[in-house]
Amino acid sequence: MKAAVVTIGDEILIGQIVDTNSAFIAKQLDELGFQVVEVLSIADQEQAIVNMLQSYQNKVDLVVITGGLGPTKDDITKKTICKFFNDDLVLNQEVLTHVTRLLEDFYNRPVSEINKQQALVPSRAKILFNKVGTAPGMILQNNKTFFVSLPGVPFEMKYIVENELKPWVITNFDAFYNVHQTIITQGVGESLLAERIANWENNLPPAIKLAYLPSPGMVKLRLSSSGNDKQAIEQSISNQVSMLALIIGDCIISYDEQLPLPHQIYLLLKSKKQTIAVAESCTGGKLATCFTEIPGISSVFKGGVITYATDSKVNLLGVSQDTILEQSVVSAQVAEQMATQAKNKFQTDYAIASTGNAGPLKGDSDAEVGTVHIGIATPHGTFSEKFMFGQPREKVVKSAVNKALELVYKELIKKNN
Amino acid sequence: MKAAVVTIGDEILIGQIVDTNSAFIAKQLDELGFQVVEVLSIADQEQAIVNMLQSYQNKVDLVVITGGLGPTKDDITKKTICKFFNDDLVLNQEVLTHVTRLLEDFYNRPVSEINKQQALVPSRAKILFNKVGTAPGMILQNNKTFFVSLPGVPFEMKYIVENELKPWVITNFDAFYNVHQTIITQGVGESLLAERIANWENNLPPAIKLAYLPSPGMVKLRLSSSGNDKQAIEQSISNQVSMLALIIGDCIISYDEQLPLPHQIYLLLKSKKQTIAVAESCTGGKLATCFTEIPGISSVFKGGVITYATDSKVNLLGVSQDTILEQSVVSAQVAEQMATQAKNKFQTDYAIASTGNAGPLKGDSDAEVGTVHIGIATPHGTFSEKFMFGQPREKVVKSAVNKALELVYKELIKKNN
Repeated sequence: MKAAVVTIGDEILIGQIVDTNSAFIAKQLDELGFQVVEVLSIADQEQAIVNMLQSYQNKVDLVVITGGLGPTKDDITKKTICKFFNDDLVLNQEVLTHVTRLLEDFYNRPVSEINKQQALVPSRAKILFNKVGTAPGMILQNNKTFFVSLPGVPFEMKYIVENELKPWVITNFDAFYNVHQTIITQGVGESLLAERIANWENNLPPAIKLAYLPSPGMVKLRLSSSGNDKQAIEQSISNQVSMLALIIGDCIISYDEQLPLPHQIYLLLKSKKQTIAVAESCTGGKLATCFTEIPGISSVFKGGVITYATDSKVNLLGVSQDTILEQSVVSAQVAEQMATQAKNKFQTDYAIASTGNAGPLKGDSDAEVGTVHIGIATPHGTFSEKFMFGQPREKVVKSAVNKALELVYKELIKKNN
Repeated sequence: MKAAVVTIGDEILIGQIVDTNSAFIAKQLDELGFQVVEVLSIADQEQAIVNMLQSYQNKVDLVVITGGLGPTKDDITKKTICKFFNDDLVLNQEVLTHVTRLLEDFYNRPVSEINKQQALVPSRAKILFNKVGTAPGMILQNNKTFFVSLPGVPFEMKYIVENELKPWVITNFDAFYNVHQTIITQGVGESLLAERIANWENNLPPAIKLAYLPSPGMVKLRLSSSGNDKQAIEQSISNQVSMLALIIGDCIISYDEQLPLPHQIYLLLKSKKQTIAVAESCTGGKLATCFTEIPGISSVFKGGVITYATDSKVNLLGVSQDTILEQSVVSAQVAEQMATQAKNKFQTDYAIASTGNAGPLKGDSDAEVGTVHIGIATPHGTFSEKFMFGQPREKVVKSAVNKALELVYKELIKKNN
């Protein structure tokens, strides 16, 4: 079962926005057993949309399109698709009732002519009801290809995919499985890692595909395979992962990427009824954001301080002024004091602290650009590690966040912690 | 001049990562005067790459491809492009010297056979030197189309685009200009906005294209036009913006989207030699992150507290326990105290505070899911506003961040502040 994901909008082609819709949809389709062969972004132009519809017709089983369903003149997806399918737009009473109620209840104003157009849908389309917005999704079929059109506003798209599209796909397509296992490694570069696992890689069964995903401070290895027998595929991948662990067990930090590291930390803390806080300097709020993006996190994440200015490390967090003068603000001692103080102030079991120089220029210390100290406070004491992440700024911050999460995760999976 | 942007990698097609490379490249190409007609993601498969090369050949002037240039077996872009062009891979001595030095200096290990392969390049390719990594970029030409291949690691790709590709494009292509002006509006929904500006929109010159970009809490309008005479295009767009301001001036909050709102706030504060801090509850670190992503921000951004737990609002920030008990933790009074206390603790001129319930469940207060109070402390006093952002969580947090930035921006552009 092949699929394509299409996002329509000039804002993507001029780089005004990062297209996050297609990653979300691709992930859902992959989980539903589809092989997503292309992700494509095109202009809000009739000819571009028609070319896309033609090129995927009978080539893939499912095309999921987002964007261009709004009420304004630049939204031409619906009428272009309708024309391509030689269909007519008809008023859908259920959608009209919903749009009318949404406007009255939420925006406190009557439905306008423009709003009413949202309730016009191709006569042969199956409607995917949009409870959280005014533009409905729709499905039209041409020979072997289903074309699904969804609004481009991310939370509306997500609502429809989860509540309307997925159940429809499960009913209308045969079960097929894509299984991925990502192994997160750290401490060894991509090429050295490849050398170490060369023999194992050369002997992988042809049905299993290996990918290397390098990023600052870590390399992810992904094993993928597909088929009808989910259990057999999972077993086959699991066997390979066991062999891999014998070779590079020393640099594997996690076997689970379905759940990002902050989420794993959340679950570990929750199960132990423990809590965490952060004290951030060079990571500037990114560590806190990693946690607060998780619904329900407030039971384990108590909060944090972003002591960007040196003064605030002293005044707000209580880091010793003498230590800063003697050791510099970018030092192991300061990282450890920040972690300990955050743990005390927020009355948590763990705390993570970062102090460093992300660049581009040297800041309040003489530390070379790229230097970062991570401090970790645990129920058994506080420690820190020093890292040199090089440049640019973006890489330094990302590496520091990854490394900090990894250090606290390793503490949490230690026995007796 | 037409261009296409291509990212190669199964990790995009299975939704494992969000492709940020293509937005960056598309933006650069747009600024260089190209019309980016498609952004495409394909698999690490020879046939998929060949199909892509064939389909863009002689259709566009420039194709910028990222991904698949690493040293491991799943990296097949270089050899596939080389084969497609009937070229041979030859050793580039300059690249080899660089790779050898990088490994010795940075990773403290000798160059391996795998690493040496990074220095193999198609014999007819122009090399785009990669100072910050081991995989060079390259350019190959076929009739009227230039194919550019770049590594997929974002900071390496960005380095090569900025330092190698852009100068080459400027030398090899005629000057052409895309001009965009984004107007950020707030307080009026997309359809109502469309109604208010319908007459103006109907009378726009055909050369100017209008787009509506709705997102939680704001609608952006983008006017775009292209041509050889940059000044004339800018004038023509500027005239339309002036007319638009007469119609919807009351809901325009900014005319500048090249610079994101946090960056504008940074420049305003810097020019006034003023400073800012944050106290975040429901925004959980996202406001701080908006600021700390800006290089050089430490001169104006002093830091922040993330008082996620109610206790920490009292203990760390000094919000009154009585106020929380009397008014609830999600209240105007608490938002204002948080802002005032953050301003005092960080000794800044401004502070932004958020307290609310992002959902999915009710938290430490009875406030309905979606309720957010934003507090703003200024040199002239503190105020707050209450918002109902509905659901889901993602929308609530995003809306709260946008609204908070907007409120402080509006204060900063007021006369006498």
